[in-house]
Amino acid sequence: MADAPDLAPDFNAWSCPLPLRDHPFVVMGHGGGGALSAELVRHLFMPAYGGETLAGLGDSAAVSLGGARLAFSTDSYVVRPLFFPGGSIGDLAVNGTVNDLAMSGAAPAYLSCAFILEEGTEVSTVGRVARAIGEAAERAGVAVVTGDTKVVDSGHGDEVYVNTSGIGLIPEGVDIRPQRARPGDVVIVSGPIGLHGIAILSVREGLEFGVELESDTAPLAGLVQAMLAVTPDLHVLRDPTRGGLAAALNEIAAASGTGVVLEERAVPVPEPVANACAFLGLDPLYVANEGRLVAFVPERHAEPVLEAMRTHPNGPEAAVIGRCVSEHPGMVVARTGLGGTRIVDLPLGEQLPRIC
Amino acid sequence: MADAPDLAPDFNAWSCPLPLRDHPFVVMGHGGGGALSAELVRHLFMPAYGGETLAGLGDSAAVSLGGARLAFSTDSYVVRPLFFPGGSIGDLAVNGTVNDLAMSGAAPAYLSCAFILEEGTEVSTVGRVARAIGEAAERAGVAVVTGDTKVVDSGHGDEVYVNTSGIGLIPEGVDIRPQRARPGDVVIVSGPIGLHGIAILSVREGLEFGVELESDTAPLAGLVQAMLAVTPDLHVLRDPTRGGLAAALNEIAAASGTGVVLEERAVPVPEPVANACAFLGLDPLYVANEGRLVAFVPERHAEPVLEAMRTHPNGPEAAVIGRCVSEHPGMVVARTGLGGTRIVDLPLGEQLPRIC
Repeated sequence: MADAPDLAPDFNAWSCPLPLRDHPFVVMGHGGGGALSAELVRHLFMPAYGGETLAGLGDSAAVSLGGARLAFSTDSYVVRPLFFPGGSIGDLAVNGTVNDLAMSGAAPAYLSCAFILEEGTEVSTVGRVARAIGEAAERAGVAVVTGDTKVVDSGHGDEVYVNTSGIGLIPEGVDIRPQRARPGDVVIVSGPIGLHGIAILSVREGLEFGVELESDTAPLAGLVQAMLAVTPDLHVLRDPTRGGLAAALNEIAAASGTGVVLEERAVPVPEPVANACAFLGLDPLYVANEGRLVAFVPERHAEPVLEAMRTHPNGPEAAVIGRCVSEHPGMVVARTGLGGTRIVDLPLGEQLPRIC
Repeated sequence: MADAPDLAPDFNAWSCPLPLRDHPFVVMGHGGGGALSAELVRHLFMPAYGGETLAGLGDSAAVSLGGARLAFSTDSYVVRPLFFPGGSIGDLAVNGTVNDLAMSGAAPAYLSCAFILEEGTEVSTVGRVARAIGEAAERAGVAVVTGDTKVVDSGHGDEVYVNTSGIGLIPEGVDIRPQRARPGDVVIVSGPIGLHGIAILSVREGLEFGVELESDTAPLAGLVQAMLAVTPDLHVLRDPTRGGLAAALNEIAAASGTGVVLEERAVPVPEPVANACAFLGLDPLYVANEGRLVAFVPERHAEPVLEAMRTHPNGPEAAVIGRCVSEHPGMVVARTGLGGTRIVDLPLGEQLPRIC
């Protein structure tokens, strides 16, 4: 805390309420996609960049350029281990950014790819990651068109960090963003949750849960296109990555000022994920996914959209899991299996750091 | 070398001539913007991504989307120290990506900004970097519209790494890329070289050269617009960052298959840079710049373009430094002050790692 005095004058000058929660130092939770991340964005990055544009803060930004409506998104990937059941940092780097673009309804088109390599990393490891990126890009139908490589001294990295940014085209008449959730909207999830987080945990901590779980990492742009073919009037799409379904729903509730009621028994949780969570004291609602989306759909379109999702390879187990309501604005409430209710909070950080 | 056998089968399958120069491990030079970087791109990334598009490999990619011609670029910044005379990692992150876009003649419009923070970093340091980014973006006339923050464990980062990606609009009729250099083109540099590299070196190694040198970091999109106002027919623009002027000229010579003759005495080298280089055994042609550009301009436009540059705040000391020739294709030759000639090679790596 000795450094706090240094901090205050620097920031008070532009009335930024720092230090955040009295943390003068960065903690793992600042990268967890929960409340600490949100504070960093709201109280540090947004005042610094001074932009209204960042304030939208969906998974990607919608911007206009040369008459085209574009989605633009960026993510860095620092997952450990680099290769895990069901995928690799390369798959995440492509699918994650492709999905962020798709969550604004865009057709992803081009990716950039920037590596930060640690001195002493095997070149073959970099090659395996690059090849995974190439293959994932081909599957997702996007092209890697520009890149960068930096090398840092041994002890200042962790073999391979990757950043991908992406741009895609938002079709005419599509306006998908967290602010558009409305009471009455039906909340749909595209499939079982928790697989990515538990798969990473199992290999990292050497835990075995009877069945080998695989990450759900997958590109979702095709699924979104199938949903948009039913109606362009989808209100919100979000991929529940860091912080899981709980973080995604809380962000939507907060951005739109509506309430969300979640039917806990309707949320598809695979048995091995449920067992692993019970064993470890985790809540599956907070576990990261990398190939799922949650959609807020006007009631009149919900049934045909659900049907379109279920006939798509990325959504056979899509399910209605809740409703958007005018009660408890900004808050997510789960109806438990026993008929009770509980508040589903925004997590503080991520239960499991370096998940993506 | 024990790991080389592991590498070969993996890569031979897709006929990639690895290991690169018998390096089974990543070395600092792979991130230096010289021959090692080029090999990594050509023999590892390009085969992995399988794209023709990446083959262009200017500072940014030119792509079409929704009827708009866009420039798209990415760079990660790992400079040490984070703050140095004349700027900071935040200035570099904005100006570097803005300049990469400007080098294809684009008007930079939007940036993404992704942080990889090391656990334990002071939040105030992150705040200072973010503020520098906001201020630099304002100066450069671009908006930071999307971002990401990841945190890695202490000992796996170095306080703050930043990636910025950017998009900009390429005006009608503009086609600026390394392949377009032609014999007869006049080679112009926008100002004195070597300031960024020597400024970083002086603070990092605690060296003093009599005068305090400041980095030249600056956004160059305005200068490029002023040049384009003279003629849209600029052939090549490049900002000579890692690897300095030597690397930039070699890349252009190789991409266009033309030769370059450099008049060594015409290259503006500030006296303190020359002194520092003499003292340290460095060649100023290989020292990084962050606020300079080199232009290949058809002879008939050279004089008015030079005039436009000299009346712009970022180019008062612009100078003609050489010519594009049909002799020695792909090669850069310097005419020395004494009337001799020497070959100016592509550097292997960067003389000074983590310069940006």
